[in-house]
Amino acid sequence: MDVHGQQKAQEALDVEIKSFFDSAPPLRNIENVSEDLKKFIEMNSSGTRSARKVVCVTSGGTTVPLEQRCVRYIDNFSSGHRGAASTEYFLKAGYLVIFLYRKGTCQPYCSLLPDYPFLECFEFTHESGIQVRQPYSEAVKWAISEHHAAVADGTLLKLPFTTIFEYLQILHMVATSLRSLGPNALFYLAAAVSDFYVPWESMAEHKIQSGSGPLDMRLVQVPKMLSVLRSEWAPTAYCISFKLETDVKILLEKANAALKKYKMHMVIANELLTRKEEVTLVTDNENIHVRRDPKQVGDEVEKHIIEHIVEKHSTYVDNLDQKVSRDTGS
Amino acid sequence: MDVHGQQKAQEALDVEIKSFFDSAPPLRNIENVSEDLKKFIEMNSSGTRSARKVVCVTSGGTTVPLEQRCVRYIDNFSSGHRGAASTEYFLKAGYLVIFLYRKGTCQPYCSLLPDYPFLECFEFTHESGIQVRQPYSEAVKWAISEHHAAVADGTLLKLPFTTIFEYLQILHMVATSLRSLGPNALFYLAAAVSDFYVPWESMAEHKIQSGSGPLDMRLVQVPKMLSVLRSEWAPTAYCISFKLETDVKILLEKANAALKKYKMHMVIANELLTRKEEVTLVTDNENIHVRRDPKQVGDEVEKHIIEHIVEKHSTYVDNLDQKVSRDTGS
Repeated sequence: MDVHGQQKAQEALDVEIKSFFDSAPPLRNIENVSEDLKKFIEMNSSGTRSARKVVCVTSGGTTVPLEQRCVRYIDNFSSGHRGAASTEYFLKAGYLVIFLYRKGTCQPYCSLLPDYPFLECFEFTHESGIQVRQPYSEAVKWAISEHHAAVADGTLLKLPFTTIFEYLQILHMVATSLRSLGPNALFYLAAAVSDFYVPWESMAEHKIQSGSGPLDMRLVQVPKMLSVLRSEWAPTAYCISFKLETDVKILLEKANAALKKYKMHMVIANELLTRKEEVTLVTDNENIHVRRDPKQVGDEVEKHIIEHIVEKHSTYVDNLDQKVSRDTGS
Repeated sequence: MDVHGQQKAQEALDVEIKSFFDSAPPLRNIENVSEDLKKFIEMNSSGTRSARKVVCVTSGGTTVPLEQRCVRYIDNFSSGHRGAASTEYFLKAGYLVIFLYRKGTCQPYCSLLPDYPFLECFEFTHESGIQVRQPYSEAVKWAISEHHAAVADGTLLKLPFTTIFEYLQILHMVATSLRSLGPNALFYLAAAVSDFYVPWESMAEHKIQSGSGPLDMRLVQVPKMLSVLRSEWAPTAYCISFKLETDVKILLEKANAALKKYKMHMVIANELLTRKEEVTLVTDNENIHVRRDPKQVGDEVEKHIIEHIVEKHSTYVDNLDQKVSRDTGS
């Protein structure tokens, strides 16, 4: 595409994005989110913390309402396990984490708990009150203590979303807030974001009535926000997106295409069935194949992913700093 | 519709239903479900328990996968609060309950807990280990003890589902298992069941690719299983279905139509915004308007709904028993 073509495409995208945000229902708790973000950044921008890196981890799937008074919606399957586990390793590596997660999905430090943790983990006896049941004892203690420590310490900020509208509006707010951190900000976009949506104004106000034959639906594409995140919302941050496919044959090709198209610094390619075992980190100059060690108990692929990212991000910050030093002659 | 027309319609429905079940992916844990059901019924069909009534409460929304290797699906919003709370009142009234619920939705005895109960309810101190945080102390104790008591006692059987395919297959198994109980069986169908689905064989095998314009989808209607439940699966059970609308103007009309069309014994009509405050119990000979008393702390509309149902169900059993006595001359 020539420069003129690129400009045209950019203008078309800008129109799509404006139309998406204009049509989005207003974020209900916008003041709270804004306040929480402000506090989190202020708390961490003085003293020894000011040099710390900050990552925004997005996690879980977004929904697309099909009706304004939402009864039916399209959902994207995602347990949120990747985002939750990665958050733990980012915190361990000294990052501050903004965890932008789908309500009800996995939380950091909870991966060892059973699926329905609350009732299954506990028992009640009249003699000793509430007790953790034996098999879960250590996992529960660890989850509660680590999780509360991170939140109380101010190193973990949790922001929930449900719809695609909420997700993109909050992501925009986070990106804007982190702009002052320059290259020290990292976006780790593990959320499963809807590709298609029904524009709010063309949505049925009431519940769609059944009883009259098949239902035909037309969904329009969600504008590719990754481009805008890179070019406008967070132009100096290190940006990592994910590519999930069920067909391994097209996976790397798709990941490479996304890397170029959205100017990501890294795309993490994963296949639905093996995603907990292995992924490929696709960057401009290399593909790094990462897998967990199945012989090592409790080894998680996220541990290895984050190790690589911490290194790459560090190099990125150093290079940009040197560039700035050279440019300013200091 | 004349008799001939009715027969034609019935035949068409039979074909639709056969095609739905034929195209459904096989239930993964069918042996476990079957075993659990068998045990539950055996355990409760001897001694004093044999005269007890059994209710199957369905709860939460079903999903409709859009891809065979499921990444995207259509979901029906339902917290499962109605089903969970109703289960508590049925147990209290002496019923045995089969709780057929959507994974991850509300559980009985948990309605007083906060949205993210697990981590928020507890704290960990090195001195005393895990403790319930003050505001939740009573609610947590109650939830754990009541819930475990019901499960341990064998009066509550919990069966989870996710997709519409799983839901209808398990409901069919439950109905068949309860047939021997005759009028003592009750179906309380509070689940938000998908109206439309994509037949398994016409579903995309791999993830739907974005990048090529809008997405057009054609969904076909889920066959109306309520008819078959009444006429074939559980012909003598007392059957209650729900009608949820966002438009109050058409609510009662729709509920009445469902009552007649599916030959339900009762349809509970509720409007999305006021459903926790009030509902209308629509039956052949009367509409009963039920509301919770907002002045009474902790009063729930489900308490009043179940009181009415217990009475109606009792009358139904007595009438059928008398009819049988008359018919057999005993």
